[in-house]
Amino acid sequence: MISVLKYGGTSVATVEKIKSIAEAIQSRYLQGEQIVVVVSAMGKSTDQLLRLIHDVNPHPSKRELDMLLATGEQVTIPLLSTALKGLGLNAISLTGAQAGIQTDDQHSKARIESIDTDLIRMHLDAGTIVVVAGFQGISPTGDITTLGRGGSDTTAVALAVALEGKCEIYTDVEGIFTVDPRYHENAKKLDQISYEEMLEMASLGANVLETRAVELAHKFNVPLYVAKSHENIPGTYIIDRSTSLETPAITGISIDERSIMASVKHLPFSQDNIAKLFVKLAERNLYIDMISIAAPYHDHVTVSFTALKDDLNEIQNVIRTLQNDFEDIDITTNDKIVKLSVVGIGMVSHSGVAANIFRLFAEGNIHYYQVTTSEISISYTVLQEDVNRAIELISKAYHL
Amino acid sequence: MISVLKYGGTSVATVEKIKSIAEAIQSRYLQGEQIVVVVSAMGKSTDQLLRLIHDVNPHPSKRELDMLLATGEQVTIPLLSTALKGLGLNAISLTGAQAGIQTDDQHSKARIESIDTDLIRMHLDAGTIVVVAGFQGISPTGDITTLGRGGSDTTAVALAVALEGKCEIYTDVEGIFTVDPRYHENAKKLDQISYEEMLEMASLGANVLETRAVELAHKFNVPLYVAKSHENIPGTYIIDRSTSLETPAITGISIDERSIMASVKHLPFSQDNIAKLFVKLAERNLYIDMISIAAPYHDHVTVSFTALKDDLNEIQNVIRTLQNDFEDIDITTNDKIVKLSVVGIGMVSHSGVAANIFRLFAEGNIHYYQVTTSEISISYTVLQEDVNRAIELISKAYHL
Repeated sequence: MISVLKYGGTSVATVEKIKSIAEAIQSRYLQGEQIVVVVSAMGKSTDQLLRLIHDVNPHPSKRELDMLLATGEQVTIPLLSTALKGLGLNAISLTGAQAGIQTDDQHSKARIESIDTDLIRMHLDAGTIVVVAGFQGISPTGDITTLGRGGSDTTAVALAVALEGKCEIYTDVEGIFTVDPRYHENAKKLDQISYEEMLEMASLGANVLETRAVELAHKFNVPLYVAKSHENIPGTYIIDRSTSLETPAITGISIDERSIMASVKHLPFSQDNIAKLFVKLAERNLYIDMISIAAPYHDHVTVSFTALKDDLNEIQNVIRTLQNDFEDIDITTNDKIVKLSVVGIGMVSHSGVAANIFRLFAEGNIHYYQVTTSEISISYTVLQEDVNRAIELISKAYHL
Repeated sequence: MISVLKYGGTSVATVEKIKSIAEAIQSRYLQGEQIVVVVSAMGKSTDQLLRLIHDVNPHPSKRELDMLLATGEQVTIPLLSTALKGLGLNAISLTGAQAGIQTDDQHSKARIESIDTDLIRMHLDAGTIVVVAGFQGISPTGDITTLGRGGSDTTAVALAVALEGKCEIYTDVEGIFTVDPRYHENAKKLDQISYEEMLEMASLGANVLETRAVELAHKFNVPLYVAKSHENIPGTYIIDRSTSLETPAITGISIDERSIMASVKHLPFSQDNIAKLFVKLAERNLYIDMISIAAPYHDHVTVSFTALKDDLNEIQNVIRTLQNDFEDIDITTNDKIVKLSVVGIGMVSHSGVAANIFRLFAEGNIHYYQVTTSEISISYTVLQEDVNRAIELISKAYHL
């Protein structure tokens, strides 16, 4: 089975790290594995490129941004393939386009439409290690596209799907923890977690794996493994729910610091007006998460939602266009909130988890603004200052 | 007529310089010109990339090197197009491959085989300024190639040929001088120079324009102009010999500091053995310039030639393989030499130039190792310490 190994930006941040990865790959290769490696841009190089173009013009077009950012991964791939060749192995670097990664034309958040694996398979069959630039592809018009946040994970899983292989994500954490160890020092590393739980954890802010990548792996049942690069510590297997042996009530807590809470005030109350707001946000492809709508007051209503910090400017632009229709509306944003989510397949069978957490929060005097629930998770927006205390309470109650 | 403007690395070294170029292009565009811009990598970024890959492995494959180096120009193009868009102009960046620049598969010194200009013409016809990455193309197998030394000049001229336009090279010098002003402070800037003279000057080491680019412009009679970027000082037109009004005996002196002199000693004398040496050097695509063969002594001979400093390692490798056949041969190199060339179409009609220069050198006690002549030039290898004095003598005698 072909192994697709993915190394993120911090794992390839220096020449020394790149050489050390080459050695790790060598020992796998010498055991007879066919290996595809997907890499990100080195360290903070993407941020440097972003600063450069924003110095030129604070509002670059997304096509030109993609042209620029794609160079980050294109620098890493020949460095890694050259390190592998330095060990006497056959290796070749391929850009996203050369690797056959066809996307749609949505620059900066393109979706992979298909992968033509002929060239990769040819190289693998010839005993060559193939090093692919993550995060990028080519549009139907031949333009360079990027896949957006966490795109390299998605590249790796998509290649594993197309090559009918397995996918291993090497990163700067040891695996999936019950809670981010930065918040809770006694957090436990999970040996395994189901796709569904991982999906909840990822979509709820656990930064280890990108939601899109987990979704894709789940959809095509691609074996997924997350571990720390440059070390020999066992990581976490992401497996099918049915093969999961035990189902504790709660598997983990996920913390999302990328969120802000936005509130649109004084909107004349009607379903049409509320719909108009969210349609406009959707048209710009803005990610909106938890929504709460206060009871109407004097025929006006306040609509709150959580969104990504990065999208703040664009959200404000959308609201400004709405002000043509509704002069009085106003927007306020709060970036001192955190989304805390409790995740566990066990919730399905263990009744009372939600009730218990509401009770814990009430006793601990933890104030929450929004609550959403899914089959296997409950999420709350809480104040940053309360988050450690909330984690403490839940971890204690559920032995995480 | 379409204008192809080329800006080199120092001209695009900073965001400020890129913005200033965008303004220069804007005023041309607003006068109704159709404009293609070819740019190099920013400042010293190519050197940084080279250091990076050499840290990984001192002997990267040329394919992987090209993959890496091509990112340098790919960074510049979206920055310039974004600067142009910031001025309210339509602009789009294209990699070499996207611009339709098809090359052969000789990595690191690829030659352009054809240019498919459909996409560029479509954008120009739509009123868009097209910003093309210099120095790079795509091979028949879809691999990224680079054109080698001065490749961006070649890209610009080749695009001017394919688009039936004119080509302007913007650089860090004001134009073509009779002698490099660093060697002779009273050097004069030429308003015009013939392709032939420019070709001699370039091939003999004047760094302003690359030989390949001048050859190409000459072959297709593309109007060529060289001037300083970021300034409004008239530069030099490179024109057809027939339209050249006056033909002084000597147009200029060209200095080449990139050369070394290599001597292979104790080679058993036979035409076959000498041929074997140069065939082996040619097989590695090593550029060999002036050759001198000493009279045989005890059936052994010393063969000297000038070559590029950069190729020193590879030349030594070739000699080492020859040592399998000829145990006694030895190689010595001298990098304290400079190639000084005197160039002028006038030489054809003004007899006695060569004789006069030999006399000047004898009087001035300037020692030379090799001499080569062409129809319109004479070149000498002289010691670095003598070069300024030699220039002084010739400039004085010929009023340069």
